[in-house]
Amino acid sequence: MLTKEENERLTKVGAGTPMGETMRRYWLPALLSWELPERDCPPVRVRLLGEDLVAFRTTDGEIGLIDEFCPHRGASLWLGRNEENGLRCVYHGWKYDVTGQCVDQMNEPRQFCAKIRVKAYPTFESGGIVWTYMGPKEKQPPLPNFAWTQVPETHREASKVVQACNWLQALEGGIDTSHFTIMHRALRKNSRQPGIEIDSPGVRGRAPTLEVDVTDYGYAYFGIRPMGDGSNYVRGYHFIMPFTQLRPPGPGMNQTHGHYWVPMDDETCMVWNFYASYDKEPLGERSSNSGNGYGTHVDVKNGFRPTRNRSNDWMIDRQMQKTETFTGIDGINQQDRAVQESMGRIVDRTRENLGPADRAVVATRKLLLEAVDTVQRKGDPRGTGSSYYELRAAEAVLRDDIDWRRELLPAMYPQTGGADRSRREPKVLEEAAPPDAGKP
Amino acid sequence: MLTKEENERLTKVGAGTPMGETMRRYWLPALLSWELPERDCPPVRVRLLGEDLVAFRTTDGEIGLIDEFCPHRGASLWLGRNEENGLRCVYHGWKYDVTGQCVDQMNEPRQFCAKIRVKAYPTFESGGIVWTYMGPKEKQPPLPNFAWTQVPETHREASKVVQACNWLQALEGGIDTSHFTIMHRALRKNSRQPGIEIDSPGVRGRAPTLEVDVTDYGYAYFGIRPMGDGSNYVRGYHFIMPFTQLRPPGPGMNQTHGHYWVPMDDETCMVWNFYASYDKEPLGERSSNSGNGYGTHVDVKNGFRPTRNRSNDWMIDRQMQKTETFTGIDGINQQDRAVQESMGRIVDRTRENLGPADRAVVATRKLLLEAVDTVQRKGDPRGTGSSYYELRAAEAVLRDDIDWRRELLPAMYPQTGGADRSRREPKVLEEAAPPDAGKP
Amino acid sequence: MLTKEENERLTKVGAGTPMGETMRRYWLPALLSWELPERDCPPVRVRLLGEDLVAFRTTDGEIGLIDEFCPHRGASLWLGRNEENGLRCVYHGWKYDVTGQCVDQMNEPRQFCAKIRVKAYPTFESGGIVWTYMGPKEKQPPLPNFAWTQVPETHREASKVVQACNWLQALEGGIDTSHFTIMHRALRKNSRQPGIEIDSPGVRGRAPTLEVDVTDYGYAYFGIRPMGDGSNYVRGYHFIMPFTQLRPPGPGMNQTHGHYWVPMDDETCMVWNFYASYDKEPLGERSSNSGNGYGTHVDVKNGFRPTRNRSNDWMIDRQMQKTETFTGIDGINQQDRAVQESMGRIVDRTRENLGPADRAVVATRKLLLEAVDTVQRKGDPRGTGSSYYELRAAEAVLRDDIDWRRELLPAMYPQTGGADRSRREPKVLEEAAPPDAGKP
Repeated sequence: MLTKEENERLTKVGAGTPMGETMRRYWLPALLSWELPERDCPPVRVRLLGEDLVAFRTTDGEIGLIDEFCPHRGASLWLGRNEENGLRCVYHGWKYDVTGQCVDQMNEPRQFCAKIRVKAYPTFESGGIVWTYMGPKEKQPPLPNFAWTQVPETHREASKVVQACNWLQALEGGIDTSHFTIMHRALRKNSRQPGIEIDSPGVRGRAPTLEVDVTDYGYAYFGIRPMGDGSNYVRGYHFIMPFTQLRPPGPGMNQTHGHYWVPMDDETCMVWNFYASYDKEPLGERSSNSGNGYGTHVDVKNGFRPTRNRSNDWMIDRQMQKTETFTGIDGINQQDRAVQESMGRIVDRTRENLGPADRAVVATRKLLLEAVDTVQRKGDPRGTGSSYYELRAAEAVLRDDIDWRRELLPAMYPQTGGADRSRREPKVLEEAAPPDAGKP
Repeated sequence: MLTKEENERLTKVGAGTPMGETMRRYWLPALLSWELPERDCPPVRVRLLGEDLVAFRTTDGEIGLIDEFCPHRGASLWLGRNEENGLRCVYHGWKYDVTGQCVDQMNEPRQFCAKIRVKAYPTFESGGIVWTYMGPKEKQPPLPNFAWTQVPETHREASKVVQACNWLQALEGGIDTSHFTIMHRALRKNSRQPGIEIDSPGVRGRAPTLEVDVTDYGYAYFGIRPMGDGSNYVRGYHFIMPFTQLRPPGPGMNQTHGHYWVPMDDETCMVWNFYASYDKEPLGERSSNSGNGYGTHVDVKNGFRPTRNRSNDWMIDRQMQKTETFTGIDGINQQDRAVQESMGRIVDRTRENLGPADRAVVATRKLLLEAVDTVQRKGDPRGTGSSYYELRAAEAVLRDDIDWRRELLPAMYPQTGGADRSRREPKVLEEAAPPDAGKP
Repeated sequence: MLTKEENERLTKVGAGTPMGETMRRYWLPALLSWELPERDCPPVRVRLLGEDLVAFRTTDGEIGLIDEFCPHRGASLWLGRNEENGLRCVYHGWKYDVTGQCVDQMNEPRQFCAKIRVKAYPTFESGGIVWTYMGPKEKQPPLPNFAWTQVPETHREASKVVQACNWLQALEGGIDTSHFTIMHRALRKNSRQPGIEIDSPGVRGRAPTLEVDVTDYGYAYFGIRPMGDGSNYVRGYHFIMPFTQLRPPGPGMNQTHGHYWVPMDDETCMVWNFYASYDKEPLGERSSNSGNGYGTHVDVKNGFRPTRNRSNDWMIDRQMQKTETFTGIDGINQQDRAVQESMGRIVDRTRENLGPADRAVVATRKLLLEAVDTVQRKGDPRGTGSSYYELRAAEAVLRDDIDWRRELLPAMYPQTGGADRSRREPKVLEEAAPPDAGKP
């Protein structure tokens, strides 16, 4: 449970708000590289942290990301002409380069370009994503070189979809391991619907205990499900500040999957999905099979909006819900989006009742509030270094008497050899035990 | 005419508002029984007095009506699974019974169900309707056993449709007998459009005089239309607090028709229509013929929204309006809805000009404001007893020299033998004479 | 650049606002004559200056323009019956004549019509347009007898289309001559897309110098484009207070074209287009060819809303934009509407950067602010006389050494013989030189 003030502090991301200023201290995924397929191609609208921007790829191949509106009289530069290393407003022909500098004014007999600039943000391409940084220049962190972005293009995939709710409730749904084997399960063997198999360890196991290891980048967390046969099914994740999750792909796969939950504005977020294989084999078709590919789920031409949404009740199929899957909604990610959107655009956290299974949710809020404080005190919040570069997710079914940290950490911290990076921060950990309803 | 403050006092129905608290002292129609066709069928959304609720029929056949949102983290329980005498949230598998008690928490190793409740309201089925009571337990009135609900299922019918305006302007249109023979008339004999026949007593008669007899349940009211031949056409209605009308079905029919105008929220109401026959013969197809059946008028699958609505100008047909019907809009109830919606979501009653023909409207406001005062003074408002159970509506064409009260009251109060139940409350009656423009 | 206060002062037009009261001192185009094609035809909704009105043509041929809502109980009179020299509300049959006087009350046994009036505005038909005046009776200006309305019906044409932004940014786009040969140009010879030919003087010439001659009706203004061959291409326009533009039709044509940008409310305006030929020949099909006819651009049955609009990105064609036209948007007027709507409903003028090419824009704001002041000081603002009746627009390509004013003014002021009517008002002119960024 949060106070009304805390809930606003965590959810509002406009320029000048506490969380807005905090978000502006991190690199953000802005758009997919293929949305700008070639030099001088049409510009693309980008909405980030409540700001309307426009992206374009120049004749020289650079990527500009600038204010959508021309500083002359306010026409949309999205209507503009992308030509000769700049984006030209169609209204009076004023033109801007990737730095935001005005370089031409077709309508003026004596030009005064030098006096005119449009807001522009730096960009960086990696992992098939165009990243941007919207904060103060002197605070720009190292480039967002997540491990998954470093594998060959054949071994990774990224996609995105608009979600009609605040970024934090999407994030809180994502890092919430306890729902995973409940909401996403199939109800019978060999169902043709995507879902977690009823004979999988996750469904067979009991409700998980959660452990959270706070680190300098956020935290590692673990869901431990007793299997009732002297073993535990342990899944190890990372939460990287402020909105990144790395998760294990399923037993026996040498991959990392993950999400970015990026605020478009206070009431809308972009959910990014990524997949990377560390095997020799390319990634193959797996992502589409798991419901994350575009297929029929996302209307790419309509700004990556989902075809299943609140206006059509996420196309829930009540017969399917009786016999095939727990929700009756088609697709794993669609199920997450449906419950999160069903809460309203910004859920009222003053009314919730958390339990021990919500420990990761509580820890996240603590770290986010801490980051806001740090930024307000002119400091550098967690996760603005580069220590998260190496991270991977891992999972295993292990006998009760085995120290699962010792087994999983080497795979989760491959470059630092599995050293436990937990900072043992009792203040965060202790309070992360939910105080609301379910204290054991 | 009302002051701005009075208009708000009468129209706003959220929890904690004066009228909202008053409405919560009565049984309310919540949904049709057939919307929950069988045990363990899918849950149904219900919006009442600004609250979002969800209804479900259990394995044992009971009906639950609870808050739409799970008290754990706020997911919609409408997405839930209705199984084994409870509604289960698909997010983390928390489950609630019809009393709102949490009875399972799939995601918690050590459950704390006893501490968790969701808001729940009692329900009652009668007349093909599921009723609920949303007020304080100790104030719960007798069950809503309207006479029409007591006839066999073959002799009654209920339906509903969403109207895009405040409940009070729908109610004021309904109890407004003077428009009936004007707005709803056909322009020529044997028109194929539904409408009041031009040779009917209502159309042939002159503009009616209104009489209002205030009672303990609301009032009986009478429209007396001089026929110009030494007779009067008298229609006798009941208004039962706070939103019920009983009306006569037309000359020579032993039936009662009626409406409930139930607030969904401040700007939307559900118009309920009901018909009951007191004859030996079943009701037959009459209701559909009079434009109240579903036919093509209501999009049942889209939450009972009307197909003719503001966005399509109620499909007004101007040629039809020239030659067939007064409005050019198809269907009696559709005509009412069109004019009432055309006033805006909440009509500005500071600008109106009432006349003597609006006497019932004025009386209604007096009684509603009185009820609000009564509730604020911790009393029991009119209409919370059971004295309205017996009521029926009646009409007749009677010679001038006949006391029409003596003729109609026995049919309108069949169990108490036609005794005049009017309370002769000069304060209400006197002020019910509209002060605005038309004082004779 | 304006202050926030100035921007609101100029853009808000509701009753009681400074600009709203100023606008109410002029005759306004309300609807097209053909929207009321015959006597007793159906009434038509009109939205003007934030007021909802309804227009009707009576049995005697007069045109009424009255409040949309019946003063009895607020039903929409648009649903009404237009019959026997009055508009009758379908709810209770109250009827109003063109003066707003209530003349019948079907539902009242003893009528009190004399006490009931509905708001009504005077109307005047001219040029195929129904005009109205919404201000104080004693301030009503001479009738709007623009020269173009005085030619035979075969020699003129008027049309209209809704634009989804404030009236002022539509006006500012219209009087902005410098964008004309940039935004509207074709990219190659003989393109099948409408556009200004690349070998036309406007495109071949250099960016124009602007001159503004302030007058008693507003101003005349001139765009002077050096052709680089010892000649100038000079276009002479008029701006008539508060929202009228007359513009030359293109070289060698004896016509005047123009626009009215009329506020429907703060966030929507009606763009009126008109064309008149002063030749012996009728107007012919020219207007349609130039993209202003209805064709497929305007959904007349849907309230004159454009088919190309923000919701479909004005159907921009990026391939067309590469090779055929500067914008890739089909139609000259559609291009204007697209850029103006792209700025948002009310553009933020505190963020703009004006240059010398925006001199007419600056002058307009000066005159509008002056008019607001004049009205507040109980005076009569510019343009409320009749001195604008004679005005026409003109253009020519002229040698450098020719005084273009001497050449153009006789055509622009045909009745007063070309006398220079400029008032040499240094205060307006001087400040009209944009102070923002581009001072030479």
